[in-house]
Formats: sequence, structure tokens, C-alpha cells
Amino acid sequence: MKKVKVGVAGYGVIGQRLADGVALQGDMELVGVADVAPTLSVRALKERGMPYDLYTALPEKRKDLADAGIPVSGTLEDLVQKVDIMLDATSAGVGARNKELYATYDKKAIFQGGEKNSVADVFFHGYANYEKGLGAQFLKLTSCNTTGLIRAVDCIDRKVGVEKVAITIIRRVADPGDYHRGLTNALQIEHAPSHQALDLMTIMPHVDATGILVHTPVTHGHIITIVMTTKQELSTEEALAYFGEHPRIRIVSLAEGFLGNASLFRYARDLGNPRGDMYEIALWSDSVVKSGKDLMFAINIPQEAVVIPENMDAIRAAMQMQTDRIEATSLTNKYLGIGKWKEHA
Amino acid sequence: MKKVKVGVAGYGVIGQRLADGVALQGDMELVGVADVAPTLSVRALKERGMPYDLYTALPEKRKDLADAGIPVSGTLEDLVQKVDIMLDATSAGVGARNKELYATYDKKAIFQGGEKNSVADVFFHGYANYEKGLGAQFLKLTSCNTTGLIRAVDCIDRKVGVEKVAITIIRRVADPGDYHRGLTNALQIEHAPSHQALDLMTIMPHVDATGILVHTPVTHGHIITIVMTTKQELSTEEALAYFGEHPRIRIVSLAEGFLGNASLFRYARDLGNPRGDMYEIALWSDSVVKSGKDLMFAINIPQEAVVIPENMDAIRAAMQMQTDRIEATSLTNKYLGIGKWKEHA
Amino acid sequence: MKKVKVGVAGYGVIGQRLADGVALQGDMELVGVADVAPTLSVRALKERGMPYDLYTALPEKRKDLADAGIPVSGTLEDLVQKVDIMLDATSAGVGARNKELYATYDKKAIFQGGEKNSVADVFFHGYANYEKGLGAQFLKLTSCNTTGLIRAVDCIDRKVGVEKVAITIIRRVADPGDYHRGLTNALQIEHAPSHQALDLMTIMPHVDATGILVHTPVTHGHIITIVMTTKQELSTEEALAYFGEHPRIRIVSLAEGFLGNASLFRYARDLGNPRGDMYEIALWSDSVVKSGKDLMFAINIPQEAVVIPENMDAIRAAMQMQTDRIEATSLTNKYLGIGKWKEHA
Amino acid sequence: MKKVKVGVAGYGVIGQRLADGVALQGDMELVGVADVAPTLSVRALKERGMPYDLYTALPEKRKDLADAGIPVSGTLEDLVQKVDIMLDATSAGVGARNKELYATYDKKAIFQGGEKNSVADVFFHGYANYEKGLGAQFLKLTSCNTTGLIRAVDCIDRKVGVEKVAITIIRRVADPGDYHRGLTNALQIEHAPSHQALDLMTIMPHVDATGILVHTPVTHGHIITIVMTTKQELSTEEALAYFGEHPRIRIVSLAEGFLGNASLFRYARDLGNPRGDMYEIALWSDSVVKSGKDLMFAINIPQEAVVIPENMDAIRAAMQMQTDRIEATSLTNKYLGIGKWKEHA
Repeated sequence: MKKVKVGVAGYGVIGQRLADGVALQGDMELVGVADVAPTLSVRALKERGMPYDLYTALPEKRKDLADAGIPVSGTLEDLVQKVDIMLDATSAGVGARNKELYATYDKKAIFQGGEKNSVADVFFHGYANYEKGLGAQFLKLTSCNTTGLIRAVDCIDRKVGVEKVAITIIRRVADPGDYHRGLTNALQIEHAPSHQALDLMTIMPHVDATGILVHTPVTHGHIITIVMTTKQELSTEEALAYFGEHPRIRIVSLAEGFLGNASLFRYARDLGNPRGDMYEIALWSDSVVKSGKDLMFAINIPQEAVVIPENMDAIRAAMQMQTDRIEATSLTNKYLGIGKWKEHA
Repeated sequence: MKKVKVGVAGYGVIGQRLADGVALQGDMELVGVADVAPTLSVRALKERGMPYDLYTALPEKRKDLADAGIPVSGTLEDLVQKVDIMLDATSAGVGARNKELYATYDKKAIFQGGEKNSVADVFFHGYANYEKGLGAQFLKLTSCNTTGLIRAVDCIDRKVGVEKVAITIIRRVADPGDYHRGLTNALQIEHAPSHQALDLMTIMPHVDATGILVHTPVTHGHIITIVMTTKQELSTEEALAYFGEHPRIRIVSLAEGFLGNASLFRYARDLGNPRGDMYEIALWSDSVVKSGKDLMFAINIPQEAVVIPENMDAIRAAMQMQTDRIEATSLTNKYLGIGKWKEHA
Repeated sequence: MKKVKVGVAGYGVIGQRLADGVALQGDMELVGVADVAPTLSVRALKERGMPYDLYTALPEKRKDLADAGIPVSGTLEDLVQKVDIMLDATSAGVGARNKELYATYDKKAIFQGGEKNSVADVFFHGYANYEKGLGAQFLKLTSCNTTGLIRAVDCIDRKVGVEKVAITIIRRVADPGDYHRGLTNALQIEHAPSHQALDLMTIMPHVDATGILVHTPVTHGHIITIVMTTKQELSTEEALAYFGEHPRIRIVSLAEGFLGNASLFRYARDLGNPRGDMYEIALWSDSVVKSGKDLMFAINIPQEAVVIPENMDAIRAAMQMQTDRIEATSLTNKYLGIGKWKEHA
Repeated sequence: MKKVKVGVAGYGVIGQRLADGVALQGDMELVGVADVAPTLSVRALKERGMPYDLYTALPEKRKDLADAGIPVSGTLEDLVQKVDIMLDATSAGVGARNKELYATYDKKAIFQGGEKNSVADVFFHGYANYEKGLGAQFLKLTSCNTTGLIRAVDCIDRKVGVEKVAITIIRRVADPGDYHRGLTNALQIEHAPSHQALDLMTIMPHVDATGILVHTPVTHGHIITIVMTTKQELSTEEALAYFGEHPRIRIVSLAEGFLGNASLFRYARDLGNPRGDMYEIALWSDSVVKSGKDLMFAINIPQEAVVIPENMDAIRAAMQMQTDRIEATSLTNKYLGIGKWKEHA
């Protein structure tokens, strides 16, 4: 079978991981990545010996890359012509401009959560609405929090139906290494309802969602608490059993030593995962309680890597590599090694 | 009228503020405070010229205080004999031992949230169950989070009835100046349901409460989100109107510049409040949303000072200074200057 | 004696404290303060009942203040006409523009460390070069770190002579309540030599100074380590004795409980100082060591309030209220209550 | 050639990295690792499929490991008998007890910086005193800060001689994932001189060293500033040239994007280094300045991995695998891939 050719625009926190994710898919080929400047990530690519070809998104800045000794294989426009589909992980707003280039060459593209919904034909989630993405030219993925949140909500929704959710997002304010944003000794609240709740309703319009978001001065993962009203009442044991079946949800406990978001980052590093990344959300078994007939629980969102699997799913949908949701997500999981841990557990 | 004589055991974060609070009550007299060592707070008391007499809780350590030049007026036992009622703000567990001393001299005492419930005859909250404290010998106050939370829940409960609440506590992990505890770049989750939810049900047994607590590495105030099911449905406007009437709840907004817990601390400092303290909880008008028929909103708990008013209420109840809940809390508020801001607002 | 009339432009972190400081000086009169918007600090001024008259720096934005219910007494131009001297604590760069207004009305003005040196006739420090400020029209104060640092260096320089200093500034990255800047789990280094070393040499040109600055994610005070080469060798005991004589240096120790910058903030709050402010720098007796013939030690800079005394000194110099350095700084100290603690110690 | 058989006691932050380091050495064989409980790191080992055999250090707790499904290959005593040398990375104090076991079986052992010096015959650093370790039975390594610091001091000392250093250690207070220690919004100072300065003098007795240590609430690397008096004066360019030749020192700059300790962690993750580790210290070219005839500069210490190379050197010395310092350290570097980046740079 001919491999699907993929390019990545924007080699930052998400772009690097998308490139690595594509490189792991046995039925895809990573043609190259594009960026504009000799950032630390681009310098690291060079120190690694250029495992991926680099294209320049701003030809007029090619000299900066050359001055830093970074080999450049061409322009973003060159890259676009060589691929079947682009994953656009550029800064918010840039993707909308790049879209014109993708359209010029009649290529498909997948945009990330930072872009406006209007950039895409379909707002996509691998598990929740895979079918909608089939054959679409332009897809937009949900942001990291929404992606992880929908995994958990969709998981229960498919079992017993979900009527409404009220979420509290305890958000990491920056990624490790960020110097352009940060909070010091402060919690910051945002206007409610949070966009994640609204985004969830775009993907799952039959669910009523609202929520409050609070930024916290940490870097290793968001924690979300969810108060969920189900159509059919659910015991905590039943809920845990359903969550446990989901390949992209990892059940953890305080007793094992998972005390918070930093434990999960530590664990992923100790697992030897590249960059200490984790694709699965974690769900604390200790957090699952009943609130009357409702269910309440807490999940952890590893913000840097959580969207990678759903992006792979999106390629599968857009390129119609698989028409079945389970077949597609299972292939993504297999190539990314998701769920492998369950065999050892 | 003869003033009620009050002593404070433990001159730490809470003890100092209790002493200041009592000193402001026109119908109470602060006889003295007790502590065991020349802590920074005790050294500050001395640098201020000993506005409060200091008694030593551990006579065998009196030399440490003397060596630091701290004048000592006697022992804790001496202090107990001089007062009508003791406010015990010692470290968790010490209060239970001090209770024997208080009982020996047949004195009343009020314990803080860190002690076990069994130490007291009544688990008390000024607004929610004032009547239960009337004439009791030993009362225990709710902890800072529970105290602030109950203000908001009781406020709505008295208007339209509250059936259940599901809370998410985004907890500050240490107070400013704490070096004996702390978190660095980590969120920490605890076993659910949180004790605050259980404590709420002890005070308000007709409400079903559960919750999840997450520690965050900040020092200036907890933020709690609350999903509340009321007996009678409530609009966000009605809810805000009810909250706005409560003397110990301050309605704030992002537009005014209250972006989070640190803004409230900044504001209290700019107000000239001693230590930058605030007695009121804050409630963000921007956070009040509907979740189906339920209400969701967020409050801020200034952990160092929030329990002071309810402690003053507790003295009033235990000493039967006022029999009416509103009369008692109003007097406390008047002496502490709570609600004064509303005249200017 | 006729009091010197003072106005303050910019009612932010520094401006508020300048206003409070002037209000405490028995021989000065605070005419009013100016700002542009209903910030939290301005709202707090209103809640306090407008102890200071507020003037608007941007008349076109007067409506914003009115909408927030803030009474306005006139424009910045009105204020300037009423005063003898302005303290300009506006955002960096604004002072240079305001200078034209001050010049128009032939008024003196004192600018803060954020302005360019060119804004002023004299770069000023109360202890190190008081005489240079006598009668000057436009003075610029050193920034918070440099102000505190020069206190310590000048103290020793006047005793035994200082040849050179190499400083390491461990800088707090934001003030309590700041949401517009911050670092999360990161240290940030700046290009050496740091501007504080260069500024020190402008004030004390006979000293060779260099240094490295590292930002840290905390809010309560900078810590500076200083490696100092003196002309005449000094024992640690002699150094401590000299530092101990300086009214604006507070000797502290780990044994007393001063474990770091947060202990000092806690102590200042417990002292009842408005906003928990401290005017003195602290110097750890435990930190004073010899490096060969050089001296090494660490000081704490309470960044929000440390420059207030030197600003009062600057008014005294510019207005020629006192011609003698010691007489002037002693009066400032007396009115601000600096050194009072030494009597109790 | 027969490979040297190595065991690792303590599979925590350091122990894991020691095991990985030994596994990379072509002339060593990792026989196994020992630990006492199903920690997160041990659970990760299992999820990885037990690439290393695990031995139990406390046979009575073997059941805890079994309950967690962790296969156990024997006891620590079994492991000791199978190896030529043990790397002991247990908690401080445990190593001293383990030493008896190692002595019983007449095995060599290397202890980490947390143990008392008395545990070992030689206090060791691969570059500074390799020869002293030759054939020794018990060696103790310097701690992370001292190890990195000595690299830089020894580097210059061998070129022009170092007379004295005055260091300021801006220390990360916890590792990523630590929940048992932490600081929140506080800098913490320790009694001077810091133990790192004293330790340096034990290894390099001809250098006069002192220093001040300040803990900061971050997790990714210490920053140390060094004021260095050399025997022969050195320009900043010469110093940079010497540092640049050292295989375990990486010269970085702000212009490249290395803004602080978090940039280096980010870079190491992007390099694909396991756990985002880095063996080299970094030295900012922007930080190198002159202080009179002295040199001042700043280095970054990646606390989790920096001691691994010197531990490998220690095995080489103790087992007399190489008698020459350069030959030994070069082999360590080759197997760990240190210096490889210079070819790409």
C-alpha cells in the first residue's frame, strides 16, 4: 500500500510531536517539517543530525537558518507540493493564512485548536465524530483540554448517554521551557463558560456543557474535574470499568504513587517515552464519586502530547484510509504504542 | 456592660488574627495570647512594643523567650484563669490536650478546624447554625475553605433551598512565609470526597455534598468552584442578587481588575487592611453560569483571615451575648468593619 | 515652617507607597495623586474614602473613572500647578513625557529607576551622593535593587573603602498581584554585566562593579550576594558591626527564623506595617564570610518599598530642606519610623 | 575483554540514570538494580518489560512488589554477590549500612553525594582527581552542584591556576515529580559557607572556596555564579576558549534561545535524550565578565543526570580499567555520547 505523504508546518511544541507521531505510523510517510527561525527545537533537530528535512516557511529569513548552520531543503511551498496532507501547527492565526497555500495546491490540511473554527470544514475528534471527517479537505482539531475531556465524556456517552457536564479546568499556564508566558504565585480565573465547554458542545451537540477555567502556575498537565449527569444512572464501579476499557484513558491511583500532574510527567520520563510525553489522559480512581445521581471525577491532560493521536486519526479520516472509527483509532493506537501498557499491567 | 474576657492560645497565622479581631470587638477584652517559642510572630509582637500580653504555653521553654528578650506575663494556665473563654489556635492535636486545662477551670473554649470534631460539643458556623452554639462549652469552627463555602451555600439555601453541591477546591498549598511545607511546579490531588464536603454536611445535614480537592503552588487564597442544585430554580441574576446581600460575600469582576486570588490580596493590601487581610470571601460575577437547572460559580477564600468573623460569632454564641443569629453576626461585622465597603461601592 | 507641597504621578505599586511616605513626613504635604484608570489601587483608594485627592493624567479617560464612581479633583496639569515638586512613578517612558509638563510650570521632579538616565540632571541616592541632589530640578532615583545594594556598599565604603564588587542578583520576577508578567518553574538569566552594577558605578564611580542577574519565580523580595574587595581588609565581625549601625539595614539571622525573602514579608505583615511593607534591606549575619581577603554576604531587597526613603531624601535635597546628608536621611528615617525597631531589639 | 559487572542499589532519580549509564558502557555489564518498594520508577520498569532485573533490598517487603506485579530476581545480597562493583544511590544514610554488606563480600562500591565522607576511602571527581580513585574499594562522588562546579574550576585550574572562588548557588529545590519537598513563592538561604564550597576544597585543596546557597522554587537545574581569582589573568575570550574545549561543558547563549535552566531542559527533551536528561553543564557565553582581574561567569547544573559520567569514571578508576584520566573520561564520554553534539555544532 502506498503510504500517505504528510508535511508538518510549525516545528514547535505540537509540531515536533506531530512529526514524531507521523514518523511512527506504518502507513504514513513524513516528508518534512517547516519553520521560520533557528529556534531551540530547530537547533535540536540539527544536533540530532536532521532526521527530518526542514523547509523554511519564510524564505526571506532563510539566512537566519543558514547562519545557525541549519540545512534547509526548500520552502514551505515546496513542501506542500510534495505531500498529500499538511498538519498545521503554526501559531494561532498563521494557519488561516497558510490555508490559502494549501488550497492553491488542492491539498488537505489539519489545523490545531488555536485556529478559529471557520478555518475548517469540520471540527474533529477521533473518537467522538470520526465519520464527519471522512474525506474532508480542512479539519480542525480540538485543543488539548477539549480533546482529553471529550475522550472521557464520549466514553460514557456511548455507554449510558450523557445529558450535561459542568467542568472545572485547573490549567497549567505554560509548557516546560516557556519564557514568553507565565504566572507567579497566582491563580487566574477566566470568564465563564470556558471555551472548552463550548467546544465540547460543537463536537457533541446533544450534551449541555459549561465550565470554569482557572490558570495555575505549573507546567506539567491540566487537571479537570467533571460533574456529569448521565441518562442512565451509573455506579462509580461501572464508570471505572467503562473508563478502563478506553485505550486512551489510563486509570491511576494515589496508592500507586500518582499524586498529581507531576507524577504523571515523572512516570512518562521513567517509561523512557521521548520527551517524557504521554498520549493518554489519566483518570484517578480515587476521584470518582457520586453527587446525588450525578458522577464526579478528575482527569489529567498531558497538554503537549495529548492531541497527537487524534491528529493521526484526522489524517486517516481526511485521507479516507479507514472508514470505521474503531479501525482507524486502533491503528493509530497500535503505531503510537498506546494501550501496550495494559498488557503489562 | 461588662466585656467578655478572651484569651488566645497559639500566636501563629490564625492566632494573631484572632487576637486582632477580639481587640476590635467593642464588647470583648483581649486578656492575652499564649505561645511556646520566640517565633517570628512573637518577635514582631515584641518589636511592636507588646500591645498584647504574652503567656507561655510551655513554662519549661520560658528561657528561650527570655533569651530573645520577649517579656512573658505568665503561663497559659495563668491566662486561662483570667478569661471567660479561650480561642484555641494551636497546632492540630494540641487543642485536644489544652481542653483538659480549660475544663479544669471550667472555662469555655473554641477550637479551630484542624482539631478533631470530637474535641467539641458543637461544630459551628456563625451564619449556618448559630443557634446550636448558644451556651455550649466547647465549640469547633469549620476550616477556612468550609467556612467560606458555607457562607455561599447557606446564603442560597435560606432563599430557595439547596439540595446538593459538587465542589472543586483549588487550594493554596502554603501561607506566605511558610517554609515547612510547599509544592513546586506540581498540582496534587487528594482522595475524594474532600473533607470540606463532609464537613459541610455535618453543619448542613440536609444538603448532599461531595468534592475534589487539588493543591496548587500558590499562597494567596483558595478558589472553589461550586455546582449547586437548588430546590427552586434560580437565574444567574437572582443568585448574584442574593450573594450581593450577604455581608461577608464580596462580588467582584474581571472588568474591575480582579483576575484571581492574587488580585484580592493586592487589593486588601492597598486597602490598608492589617497584614493585607480580608474577612470576606469574593465571588466572581463573571463565573456565575447555569448548568441545566443547576448553578455554577467560583469563590475566593482568603485562608488566613476568613475564619476570624465566625470565631467572633462563636464567642457571642458560647457566651450567649446575643441569642439572635443576625444580631450576633451583625455586631461582629460592625466591629470588624465588614460591609463598610458597600457604602462606598 | 511651611510644608513642601508634593504631588505623585502614577498610583501603582511605587506611587501608592510614595504617597503614603510623603503623608508621613511632618514637613511635607501630599497635595494629591494622579492616575489614568480605575485600577485596583485607585478603587481601593475610593473604598478607603479618598484619603488622597485623585487627579486624572489623561483627561479624555476621565469618564472611565467617573463610571467606576471615583471622584476626580482635576487634571495632572492642575496638580502640577499646586505643588512644589512632583514624584513621578508612572510607567517607564511616561515620565520623560511628563517632564515637559513639569518644566512648563518650572516645577522640580523626581523620576524612578525605570526612566532613562537622560531624563534627569542627577542620578541620586540618599546616602551615597545626597550632596549632588541639592537644588537640582530633575533627579532620578536608582531602581530597587541598586538602591538597596548601594546602602550596603556605601556603608562599607565610608568605613574602609571599597575597590570592587561582583554581585549576583536573585531577582523576584513579579510583585504580588501581578498578572501581566511572570515566570513558571524557570530561572532566567540576563546578559552580564547587569544594569544594577553599571548603575552603581554611575553613583559610585570609584568602585569597579559587575554582576549577573537571574530572575526567579517569586514575588517577595530580591536576594543579592555580594563579593566585595575592600581597600582595608575587614573581618566578618567588623563588617557586621558597620552594617549594624546603618539605619536602613536590618541584621537578621536564620536562628531567629528569617529563612528567606518570604520570612521578611511575613515579619513585616506581622509588624502591622501597611501593606506588609519594609523600608530596610535585610542582611543575614549567617551569610557573611571571607573569600580570601574579600568579603561575601547576602542581602534582601523588599522591592515594593525599599526606594521610598531615598525618594523622601531626594525631595529634601532638591528642595534644599536640609543640606547635610545625615540630617536629611535621619529626618526621613524618623518620619517613616525606620530604626525604631532597634530600640526594642 | 571481560566486562566489569555492575549493580545499582536504589532505583530512584539517580539510580535509574546510573543503570542506564552503565548499560551504555561497552565495557561494563549491568547485572541488576535493587529497590525496596513498588515506586513509580519501579512500576515504570515493569511497564517497560523489565529491561533490568530487579532485586529487593528489603526481603520482608517482597510481598509489596509481588502485589504490584513486579517480578523480583532475588535480594540485594544476591545481587552483590554477582557483581564486581556496586553503585549505591540509596537515600542518604542507607549507603553507610549497605557498605557492611559490600565489605562482607569484598566488593567495591561507589557512594553518592548524600552520604557522609567517612563512608568512603576517597572523595572522587573524574576530571579533578581520577588518579586518587585508582584501585580504591570505596569511593564517594561529589554531589550534583559540586560535580558540575568542579568541572569548570578544574578546567581553568589546569590552564592558568585557580587561587580562589566565591560561588552563589541558585538551587532548584525539588526534582520534577517530587511531592515530598518543595517551596512555594519563597527563596530560602542557608548558612554560609555552603557545603559545595567546602567539598570543592576537599577535592581541590589548593583552591580557597566559599559560597552562599539560595533555594528557589524551580525543578529544572541549578544556576551557579562563580567569581574566580586565577593565578594568571585571563581574558573572557581565553576563558571561553578553555571552557569550549571541555567535553562536559556546553557553551550556550541567550541569542540561541537558552534563556535559563528551563531552556536547557526543553532542549534536552527536544534532542530526544531519555528523560530529557543532559550530562553536560551549560555555561552562558553572555555571562562571562571581568571583575577587576577576576573572572565571573554562570553555569547550569542539570541536577538529575550531571553526576552520571563521573560515576562511570569512578567505576573505571576503582576497577583500574584505565589508569589515565583522559583515557578514562574519554571512554565514558564516548559511550554516553557526550561531545557528539560538537561535531554537529
